[in-house]
Amino acid sequence: MTDTVRERADRLSAAKTIIRQSGAVALDYFERYDMLEVQSKRTAQDLFSEADTNVERLIRTAIAEQFPCDGLVGEEYGKQEGTSTWQWVIDPIDGTSCFLHGLPTWCVVIAVLENGVPVLGLTYDACRDHLYWAALGEGAWRNDARIRVHPRAVIADGLTAIGGSNAVYSAQLGGIIERLLAAGGSYMRNGSTALTLAHVAAGHYVGYFQPLLNSWDCLAGLLLVSEAGGVTNDFMADTGLYGRGDVFACAPQVATELEEIVGSTASPR
Amino acid sequence: MTDTVRERADRLSAAKTIIRQSGAVALDYFERYDMLEVQSKRTAQDLFSEADTNVERLIRTAIAEQFPCDGLVGEEYGKQEGTSTWQWVIDPIDGTSCFLHGLPTWCVVIAVLENGVPVLGLTYDACRDHLYWAALGEGAWRNDARIRVHPRAVIADGLTAIGGSNAVYSAQLGGIIERLLAAGGSYMRNGSTALTLAHVAAGHYVGYFQPLLNSWDCLAGLLLVSEAGGVTNDFMADTGLYGRGDVFACAPQVATELEEIVGSTASPR
Repeated sequence: MTDTVRERADRLSAAKTIIRQSGAVALDYFERYDMLEVQSKRTAQDLFSEADTNVERLIRTAIAEQFPCDGLVGEEYGKQEGTSTWQWVIDPIDGTSCFLHGLPTWCVVIAVLENGVPVLGLTYDACRDHLYWAALGEGAWRNDARIRVHPRAVIADGLTAIGGSNAVYSAQLGGIIERLLAAGGSYMRNGSTALTLAHVAAGHYVGYFQPLLNSWDCLAGLLLVSEAGGVTNDFMADTGLYGRGDVFACAPQVATELEEIVGSTASPR
Repeated sequence: MTDTVRERADRLSAAKTIIRQSGAVALDYFERYDMLEVQSKRTAQDLFSEADTNVERLIRTAIAEQFPCDGLVGEEYGKQEGTSTWQWVIDPIDGTSCFLHGLPTWCVVIAVLENGVPVLGLTYDACRDHLYWAALGEGAWRNDARIRVHPRAVIADGLTAIGGSNAVYSAQLGGIIERLLAAGGSYMRNGSTALTLAHVAAGHYVGYFQPLLNSWDCLAGLLLVSEAGGVTNDFMADTGLYGRGDVFACAPQVATELEEIVGSTASPR
C-alpha cells in the first residue's frame, strides 16, 4: 500500500464513522423537531438550524482531531486552509428545507479531495440508515451493496429529478419540466441535491438537473454517479470549489435526450 | 352509540388493521424487489405489479369477510356493488412508479363512503410505519398524534407539491411550476398523491395540485386535509367516484395565492 492509498483509506474509514455519528445527531434533532420552531423563522427556504450548525461543528472537530493538516470547506463556516494535499468538503444537512418542514429527504454529505480532485464521496440518509459512498476508481455503494445507475434507462420510462428553487430560474425550470413531460418523462423533486444524486447512482432516478448549486451540495453525489456508471458534468472544471453552478447527472443512455430537455444550460460533460 | 356511529367505528377499526397488514405485505415485496424485474417491463410510469394485485386481493378479501354487504371500488378490480349504505374505495399501492423504481414514497390507501359521502380516510406509509387516518368530524391523525395543516403557511416560505405525469398536461404543469417559483415558492413531487395529501394534512407541504386523478388516489387524502383544517376541492361533486379530475388541497392561508398559481384549472372549492 503506497502512502497515498493508505492516506485515502484512512480518510474513507474515518469519514464513514464521522458521517454516521453526525447523521445520528441530526436524526435526533429531526425526530425532536417541534413545528413551532419552524413557524417562528422568517423563511423556510434557506434556513440554517441549530442542528445544521451543531452537526457541522461535530464533523469539523472530528476531522481536525484526526487529520489536523487537512483543509475544510463547508456551508456554515466557510473555508479553512490546510497544509496537506487533502481537503474535506462538507454539508452537515443537505435538504435543510425538507428537514425543517418535517420531510425525511435530507442527508449529511462529505466529499474528500486530493490535490483538488474529488476522490471520496459520502452521503448519509440517516432516516433510512443508508450510507452511500464512493471512492474514485473503486465503485459506488449503499452500505455494503454495490450500486449502479439504471442499466436500461429511457426518459419515457423513468423518473427524472429536476431541482431548483430560485425565482430567477422559474422560466428555465418551467420549460424543462414542460419538455420533460412532453417527452413522456416524469419529473420528481425530493428537495436534497445530495440524496437525489445518490438516487441517480442507485438507479432510482434516470437523471437529474439543477442550476445554481454549491460544491458541498454536489461533489460527493457526482462522484457517486460516475462511480456507479453514470455521466455527469465536471463541476470542478465548470464551476470550481467556491462558485455556484449547474449539476447534470444521468444514466449514459439518457444523456443526449436529457441534455436536449434541459437545454443549453447543461454544462459540457 | 347509534347504529350508524357504531357501524362507522367498526369500519374504522377494521380498516386500520387491514391497511397495516396489507402495508406489511407490500413492504415485504418492496424490500425484496429485484431491480431486474423493473427493467424487464416496458413502461415504468404505469406499472401494475404483482404486489399491487396481491395487496388489493388481500384488502378485498378482508373487507368481504367482515362487511359482505359493502360495496368496493379499486384500481385493479373495478367496481363491486354492495347492498349496504357503505362503500370502500381502495388503492393497494399508490405511487406504483416510485415503488417499482425503489423509492419509498408509496402507500396503501383506503377510503370509506357512507351514502356516497367520504367519512373515513386512511393512508399507510409502510416504509415509515406512519398511519395517517381521518374520520369526518373527528379530526386527522398520524398514528396516535393529531395532525394539522401548516398554521402560518405562505407560498414563499413553504414547499408546494405539484403532481402530474401525463404529456397532455406538460404546458399546464410547466406554467404552474414557473409561476410558483416566480412567486418565491418551492415545488416538490414525491410521486404518490395519497402520501402527498397526507403531508399537506401534516403541515409538511403548504399545498398540492394535480390534474387527472382517480377517486381511489385522492378521497382518503382529501378527507385528511379537510379534517386537518385545510381546504380542498370537492372531488365527489367535481368529478365523482368513477371519473378522473383535478385535486386541489392546501392550508387555508395560501388558498387564494395557490389558486392563482394553478390557474383556471383549479376546481371550485
